[in-house]
Amino acid sequence: MTEKNLSDLFLDTLKDIYYAEKQIYKSLPKMAKAANSDQLRQAFEKHHEETEGQIERLEQIFELIEKPARGKRCDAIEGILDEGKEIMDEYKHAPALDAGLLAAAQAVEHYEISRYGTLKAWATKLGNKDVVRLLDQTLSEEKKTDETLTKIAGSAVNAEAA
Amino acid sequence: MTEKNLSDLFLDTLKDIYYAEKQIYKSLPKMAKAANSDQLRQAFEKHHEETEGQIERLEQIFELIEKPARGKRCDAIEGILDEGKEIMDEYKHAPALDAGLLAAAQAVEHYEISRYGTLKAWATKLGNKDVVRLLDQTLSEEKKTDETLTKIAGSAVNAEAA
Repeated sequence: MTEKNLSDLFLDTLKDIYYAEKQIYKSLPKMAKAANSDQLRQAFEKHHEETEGQIERLEQIFELIEKPARGKRCDAIEGILDEGKEIMDEYKHAPALDAGLLAAAQAVEHYEISRYGTLKAWATKLGNKDVVRLLDQTLSEEKKTDETLTKIAGSAVNAEAA
Repeated sequence: MTEKNLSDLFLDTLKDIYYAEKQIYKSLPKMAKAANSDQLRQAFEKHHEETEGQIERLEQIFELIEKPARGKRCDAIEGILDEGKEIMDEYKHAPALDAGLLAAAQAVEHYEISRYGTLKAWATKLGNKDVVRLLDQTLSEEKKTDETLTKIAGSAVNAEAA
């Protein structure tokens, strides 16, 4: 019978998303380089910058809860990013490349939205208002990025691929 | 220079979610069995039944586009489900088990919402109304399941874990 409680779960999940954000940060320039359309390339570049701020926010949270900022291998993000790599490989120079990159990026965003939503709910239960505020800032950014990607998908990119 | 277009991308992604749904279908009874609260167990059991219908809908789509219903290994869902297994293992009998199971299930739902949203957008571009209708039914179910899980998370489960 273990006694792991919500604080332990919060810390484990924080380490998971910290690792994930760092992997995403490394992937975004590759996705930007691969994109056919300028609009999509710029969206990836912008999100790359934003991700840097999100990593810093996670480091602030580790500080607030007085734990060392350490990542923990996150199989989910590895799998999601692997699918993105597969698209870059299989659809290289193909008309549908950007549509595939957009789909891969939206899968990443949804993973993050799910994780930050969960962490925010747990931080609220744990009564840590400063942590809630930081998580909420990132959650809003991720939702906005997902909306931007949906808009791009609805415009030029998918039409070109059809 | 490959010539893979949006129809190819649609088919590849359909195979990916078909594989994913089958893996989810296999995982849900294990998650239901692991859950501490009756409410969460029932939610997983209900979603297990629903997943069966979603798999059938995907088979109807394969038929409509005249392709054999075949899955393609999806690294993303493997990674996401592996994290769920880790929770079941590390938090076995722990107070925070259900909160962790809920988080794992919501990561699955978000992956599906992202995939079905993408597939629906592509089917719309490709002008296949019957396929759009089927994808939309599943998309609505997944969003509803995610809302149900959020409600459960907001009530008893997380409070117990704190």
